[in-house]
Amino acid sequence: MLSICLLMIFVQSGKMADSPNCDLKSLSPLQLFERVTEQGEKVRALKAGKAPKDEIDAAVRMLLSLKLSYKTTTGQDYQAGLPPKDLVLINNGTTQEEDEDLVNPWNVQTSNAKGVDYDKLIVRFGSSKIDTDLINRIERAIGQKPHHFLRRGIFFSHRDMDQVLDAYENKKPFYLYTGRGPSSQAMHVGHLIPFMFTKWLQEVFDVPLVIQLTDDEKYLWKDMTVEKAYEYARENAKDIIACGFDVNKTFIFSDLDYLGTSAGFYKNIVKVQKHVTFNQVKGIFGFTDSDCIGKISFPAIQAAPSFSSSFPQIFNGKENIQCLIPCAIDQDPYFRMTRDVAPRIGQPKPALLHSVFFPALQGAQTKMSASDPNSSIFLTDTPKQIKTKINKHAFSGGRDTIEEHRKYGGNCDVDVSFMYLTFFLEDDDRLEQLKQAYTSGELLTGELKKVLIETMQPLVAAHQERRKQVTDEIVKQFMTPRKLAFEF
Amino acid sequence: MLSICLLMIFVQSGKMADSPNCDLKSLSPLQLFERVTEQGEKVRALKAGKAPKDEIDAAVRMLLSLKLSYKTTTGQDYQAGLPPKDLVLINNGTTQEEDEDLVNPWNVQTSNAKGVDYDKLIVRFGSSKIDTDLINRIERAIGQKPHHFLRRGIFFSHRDMDQVLDAYENKKPFYLYTGRGPSSQAMHVGHLIPFMFTKWLQEVFDVPLVIQLTDDEKYLWKDMTVEKAYEYARENAKDIIACGFDVNKTFIFSDLDYLGTSAGFYKNIVKVQKHVTFNQVKGIFGFTDSDCIGKISFPAIQAAPSFSSSFPQIFNGKENIQCLIPCAIDQDPYFRMTRDVAPRIGQPKPALLHSVFFPALQGAQTKMSASDPNSSIFLTDTPKQIKTKINKHAFSGGRDTIEEHRKYGGNCDVDVSFMYLTFFLEDDDRLEQLKQAYTSGELLTGELKKVLIETMQPLVAAHQERRKQVTDEIVKQFMTPRKLAFEF
Repeated sequence: MLSICLLMIFVQSGKMADSPNCDLKSLSPLQLFERVTEQGEKVRALKAGKAPKDEIDAAVRMLLSLKLSYKTTTGQDYQAGLPPKDLVLINNGTTQEEDEDLVNPWNVQTSNAKGVDYDKLIVRFGSSKIDTDLINRIERAIGQKPHHFLRRGIFFSHRDMDQVLDAYENKKPFYLYTGRGPSSQAMHVGHLIPFMFTKWLQEVFDVPLVIQLTDDEKYLWKDMTVEKAYEYARENAKDIIACGFDVNKTFIFSDLDYLGTSAGFYKNIVKVQKHVTFNQVKGIFGFTDSDCIGKISFPAIQAAPSFSSSFPQIFNGKENIQCLIPCAIDQDPYFRMTRDVAPRIGQPKPALLHSVFFPALQGAQTKMSASDPNSSIFLTDTPKQIKTKINKHAFSGGRDTIEEHRKYGGNCDVDVSFMYLTFFLEDDDRLEQLKQAYTSGELLTGELKKVLIETMQPLVAAHQERRKQVTDEIVKQFMTPRKLAFEF
Repeated sequence: MLSICLLMIFVQSGKMADSPNCDLKSLSPLQLFERVTEQGEKVRALKAGKAPKDEIDAAVRMLLSLKLSYKTTTGQDYQAGLPPKDLVLINNGTTQEEDEDLVNPWNVQTSNAKGVDYDKLIVRFGSSKIDTDLINRIERAIGQKPHHFLRRGIFFSHRDMDQVLDAYENKKPFYLYTGRGPSSQAMHVGHLIPFMFTKWLQEVFDVPLVIQLTDDEKYLWKDMTVEKAYEYARENAKDIIACGFDVNKTFIFSDLDYLGTSAGFYKNIVKVQKHVTFNQVKGIFGFTDSDCIGKISFPAIQAAPSFSSSFPQIFNGKENIQCLIPCAIDQDPYFRMTRDVAPRIGQPKPALLHSVFFPALQGAQTKMSASDPNSSIFLTDTPKQIKTKINKHAFSGGRDTIEEHRKYGGNCDVDVSFMYLTFFLEDDDRLEQLKQAYTSGELLTGELKKVLIETMQPLVAAHQERRKQVTDEIVKQFMTPRKLAFEF
């Protein structure tokens, strides 16, 4: 809506040509800030040069439009000389452009079969792209080939990863924090992405890991009892443990449980809660006056594990251990808020590594739902179910007939089987072969699906086998607050 | 403002005589509900009887006014056949009448030297007066003379005290819950009132007692660190313990501490937080969008100890033990909210006993402040300080000259020395004698002050003596989550 209005002003003022980039919504707060500053200088120059009134008026109108755009994006009035703060507000779809992707912790929507436009999202969220330089630096630091999630752009965005590598290279400690909202017992293969990657990070950097299960969040948002939410947390913990985490280096906790057993967690929660207003969470998460006070204060509970003092048993009471959070990018609003608060409560800002979203079988523009068993491959699926689901539901980027396919080739950018293979087929050469063969038309959709089926069946079966080994006793070990195998 | 508008409508409609009670603001939600219902029936009757158009119009206007008044008071639209819920909203001064007292957990203001109009407050809050019948029933139940705080109307209002007595008479268990916000180290004699009364209740009923120190609240509201708030909590605990509580029957807890050590407390907090919206706390406590999310969600933390499941170690995990809360009436908004939520989370509503406010030395209309050492007698005052303060600052209801005083007598209703004696002089006959002598003019202000000085000096000295005996070890005992001397 906003850019349409601005466009009209530009046209009316006859100054369309003045606007090298009409799409102000795609600018970061800092870029917008610079545009306002520039335009202000231009107005002053025109006035000083006694330019024609029409021209000055047009420049002033544009200045006002830019200021309005700045305010809409940042939630703050433009103040000359004061660049925007770290806290970037997202508009929860309310002032969103029609073709813009919706991304927040409860909703991810795009109308594009290729999925969310992640380059745009980096600009909107004000994060940084994981580029070749950073990947190379990681490779040098760890002395081995980076995970294929990094090489293939599945983890594509970051905040302050350089600082984490600085710390690592200077032998300073850091720790990993990730989590899951246990909304049901059913986890699908997409839910494993952050955990598979976090496990790799834990191994290559050899650091402590804390995993938060936000059962309180699920109780607040869903129609379920506290007991059910806690039960899901414990069930989900089994699937997480089955990813192969080291019990001596990993602490998994349910909020409902850990809040009542930690000397440090609530203190950090209340510190964050003191430094975030309702206005801010309204801007960041889109809460309204009709939302319950539990939802309104919850963001502080997801923020607090970013601070090492929330785990005195692990960090020996130390407050200043740097935290690195691998997560899907829809969780970023929580941590933008956390990073805004951190210096005000004397804590280091957490660093982040953001992943793309895992697509539904029906295509990247379809909403995946734990209640629709056909929307993904679940961790409880049998080999037969996996085969049927992929053959029946995986959206194909192939052509309508074999003849056409042979002639024009398939489209890997929208083909869900190929997308899933980028996540789960580790062999780079094989993946590249498949891509070329599919794009050229040599490989048919059925054949590509067969490769995916043969990749997923053993992967899921192996997960099920490992999960079976996860006894209640093992869950208890992971979930008991304790010292880990690190000295602080 | 509202009643002025309504008055105008009544005058315009020429139906003033129809309004037996123009002061709609003083009606309880239920009374208002009944007035709307009655008026609706009247309109229907007039229409059915084909009454003159003027008359019908006037009746409709009045119906609309009544509905508006109902909505303003309850925050809900009137719905025929659906009486208002237990949750009574107070208007935090915004739509308050000019001569109305302001009473909420952070502010008590009155322009009357006699103090707040408690009869009006009972009507506004929708609580019940502690009348002679109830006091007599308590006397029969406990088999002894009720505390002078009851006999003298210092505890003057209640909710469901009959139910507590029913439970007691049927040998069903209940427990006591009271608390304090540790805003500073300095406590004054007024702060002892709820604790002195609670101690008496604990002794006569022989029940468990939990005492909440809301150090998290003070951290959120005041400019202080978490550490300082916790320190004040522990210091205040010493003064509370010095009131003579039985360590085997009393659990004192700091929120900052207990939240991290209790398996039940946070679960109840999050349950309350799920069932209260921002709209509701806005209506009850006057929070705004600029308030931090900690303040907004705090009411749930004061609510949770009303439920026995917040103390599994005391009540053996039992959920349904009735709670009785003795407190000053400014804390009632928290518990109106709690009582509204209780049935929706399957818990019994807490019962309440409300006390009047303790007046400042300068008079009941003056705000007492812990930062002004002359506004009350502090628990750390020396006998000399007590003497000087009372002689110098205690507002006198006496006459300007001895001659006038002898002739017309003093006014006990506004005399702070006399007010303090009603709190602290236990001997009923002596108090009555003093009242008569002062009112008749026989007793001079200086003489009355001397009685107060001689009452307060030993009382404060004895408190100081007992406080000295309270070691850190004893504080630790009281504040350790544990089973008390009761079986559940």
